[in-house]
Amino acid sequence: MKSICAVEGVEAAGIKEGKYGLALIRAAGSAAGVFTSNRVRAPCIELMERKILSGRLEAVIANSGCANAYTGSRGYADAEQMCIIAGEALGIDPASVGIASTGVIGRYLNLDLIGRQCRELVPLLAKSEEGEEQAAHAIMTTDLAPKHALIDGKKFLVAGICKGSGMIAPNMGTMLAFLYTDAAVETGALRDILRRVSRRTFNRVVVDGDMSTNDIALCTATQEAGSVSERQLETALESCCRSLATQIAADGEGATKLIEVTVRGAMNEEDAAAIARTVVGSPLVKTAVYGEDPNWGRVVAAAGRAGVAFDPSRISLWAGEGQDRHALVNCGSIVVDLSQAKKTMKGKKVVFELILEEGEGEATAWGCDLTEEYVRINGRYTT
Amino acid sequence: MKSICAVEGVEAAGIKEGKYGLALIRAAGSAAGVFTSNRVRAPCIELMERKILSGRLEAVIANSGCANAYTGSRGYADAEQMCIIAGEALGIDPASVGIASTGVIGRYLNLDLIGRQCRELVPLLAKSEEGEEQAAHAIMTTDLAPKHALIDGKKFLVAGICKGSGMIAPNMGTMLAFLYTDAAVETGALRDILRRVSRRTFNRVVVDGDMSTNDIALCTATQEAGSVSERQLETALESCCRSLATQIAADGEGATKLIEVTVRGAMNEEDAAAIARTVVGSPLVKTAVYGEDPNWGRVVAAAGRAGVAFDPSRISLWAGEGQDRHALVNCGSIVVDLSQAKKTMKGKKVVFELILEEGEGEATAWGCDLTEEYVRINGRYTT
Repeated sequence: MKSICAVEGVEAAGIKEGKYGLALIRAAGSAAGVFTSNRVRAPCIELMERKILSGRLEAVIANSGCANAYTGSRGYADAEQMCIIAGEALGIDPASVGIASTGVIGRYLNLDLIGRQCRELVPLLAKSEEGEEQAAHAIMTTDLAPKHALIDGKKFLVAGICKGSGMIAPNMGTMLAFLYTDAAVETGALRDILRRVSRRTFNRVVVDGDMSTNDIALCTATQEAGSVSERQLETALESCCRSLATQIAADGEGATKLIEVTVRGAMNEEDAAAIARTVVGSPLVKTAVYGEDPNWGRVVAAAGRAGVAFDPSRISLWAGEGQDRHALVNCGSIVVDLSQAKKTMKGKKVVFELILEEGEGEATAWGCDLTEEYVRINGRYTT
Repeated sequence: MKSICAVEGVEAAGIKEGKYGLALIRAAGSAAGVFTSNRVRAPCIELMERKILSGRLEAVIANSGCANAYTGSRGYADAEQMCIIAGEALGIDPASVGIASTGVIGRYLNLDLIGRQCRELVPLLAKSEEGEEQAAHAIMTTDLAPKHALIDGKKFLVAGICKGSGMIAPNMGTMLAFLYTDAAVETGALRDILRRVSRRTFNRVVVDGDMSTNDIALCTATQEAGSVSERQLETALESCCRSLATQIAADGEGATKLIEVTVRGAMNEEDAAAIARTVVGSPLVKTAVYGEDPNWGRVVAAAGRAGVAFDPSRISLWAGEGQDRHALVNCGSIVVDLSQAKKTMKGKKVVFELILEEGEGEATAWGCDLTEEYVRINGRYTT
């Protein structure tokens, strides 16, 4: 098994009918969640934020095709009903059912469809590769590939599936991530770890800069593998989420290349992250990468508008990785060799490293190039 | 005359050779400027910010094709030399020569070329339609059309030319605006008026969200028309700059439509502006407008991530203008009629009005749709 079903105590199933998919995952344990910070949040997010306070989940139900966002009190009642449907079908307390939705904004859930799909899924729940694969497929919208990760922490496992073609992709966009570990960890510690890890992984993916109304990451710890150090768990969860985050960026709508931007030497991690996110989200950097144009001035210009103080005359900028890593700017001097720089823009992954002289802060962000295909995908969506 | 040469005391000329243009404008008077807030600023901006402290200009020299940005102390010396070239050719003090540059970042100015072009321009300086037109053309980069405006304040005129396909367009992007009035106004008052007006006009144009290293707006008042009330001047200057700002947005790289977003009922003007700018800059809103897809959920979702507190359940959203103005959301209820909404997306201008229930704050922002052509223009630039 490649992801969540490898974790002790996790069973999954999924179904996809046209645009409308449903994933069901059963796993009981301590649980934590992080949610979109958009002011316009889907009712299922409002509901889920309340439910997670109990610190425990026994299952998660997630649908694609309809985000149940901007649907007001009816949307909230529908989300509650969706948890009841799952709870009754599974024979568990609906209060312990987690929920997530992704799809078009401003439309109501089809609860008849979800009810029928849910009842079909319950007998299919299995600890199998097929189950985890179907669940990962069920939550896809404009994603081209299912996304999963599995990290072996020696004495324990951490795994996850997720979907997303952007922080928000189109209306049906949204990032949903469902993470599982068999490590024994209390809710409070799990919550802190998930928050820190999300900040360094999912929150550093920028496809188009549009933040969803429905973003959610849920982590459930089944406790089956016994206790592990929080540090070990955090390291493994970070690896897992980093893998999922880069998969989201690489599968950004219309993307042909993954862009990775690392900023070092900032005053602190927050400053470094702000610059890395701004560079990786810049339409001009994204189009230059698409055109394999080593237009490094755009990287520097984007860094300059990140709202972070630094001395531009002392920065260094590198492109590429390993043997193909080349300096473009060295301590404020332009040292670029355009033919070498061009080489760093070939391939499926383009890497920039920007080094400031302000402190020890360091952060990496991931994104993708901006292509005609992004425009096509998003130019006609509702219709 | 359609713009600056209509103002008493203003003469202009321009030349464009391939990518390399030079504009020369002679007009003596009190002067003020506003500049990019990018941390990475071109040396000519650093120089100009110092020069404008004198509160007086006699001429402006501006080149296109090379931004002279990220060129360090040599770039600063080059910018000073460019002012000396203009001062000597015009027989005026170089300290009173304003300067601006737009074009590729990280390349040095060709001072020989600029010197030759400048000497050719001096005898061509004229108070003529040809002169103002050539100056407006000389500063164009990816712009498809020259941009000019002329406002008749009854007893005085306000006029301007500008270029720009974005807050930053590509490397050769940048917004440059040169504004003239024959009103008699002191430097201090002119500075305050220009700052307020820029905030409500140029700073509310978003093409791609990338802020330039070279943005500049300079205003010179030749005093020839005698004194006017500051309020009258501010109103006229705002009309002039609003006209130029919408021209920039409509001529955004690859644009097929102008997008105008007005936010009313925010807590204050700043909040309204933040939301309007976020909506107009959203890639998902921009692609939906391009596809004439009345995907209003994207407008609401973008508003929600603007960093401004408001109650989503009390907003109203309208699309279109005049007789074709239709409600999409009314006080939190979805009332959209998709076929009517689709009609509001046709035409060269698409208008959204978002009404909050938080206060009296109001602001308008302008942008353009995001098209395959934007990607093509910016995918291959340096080469």
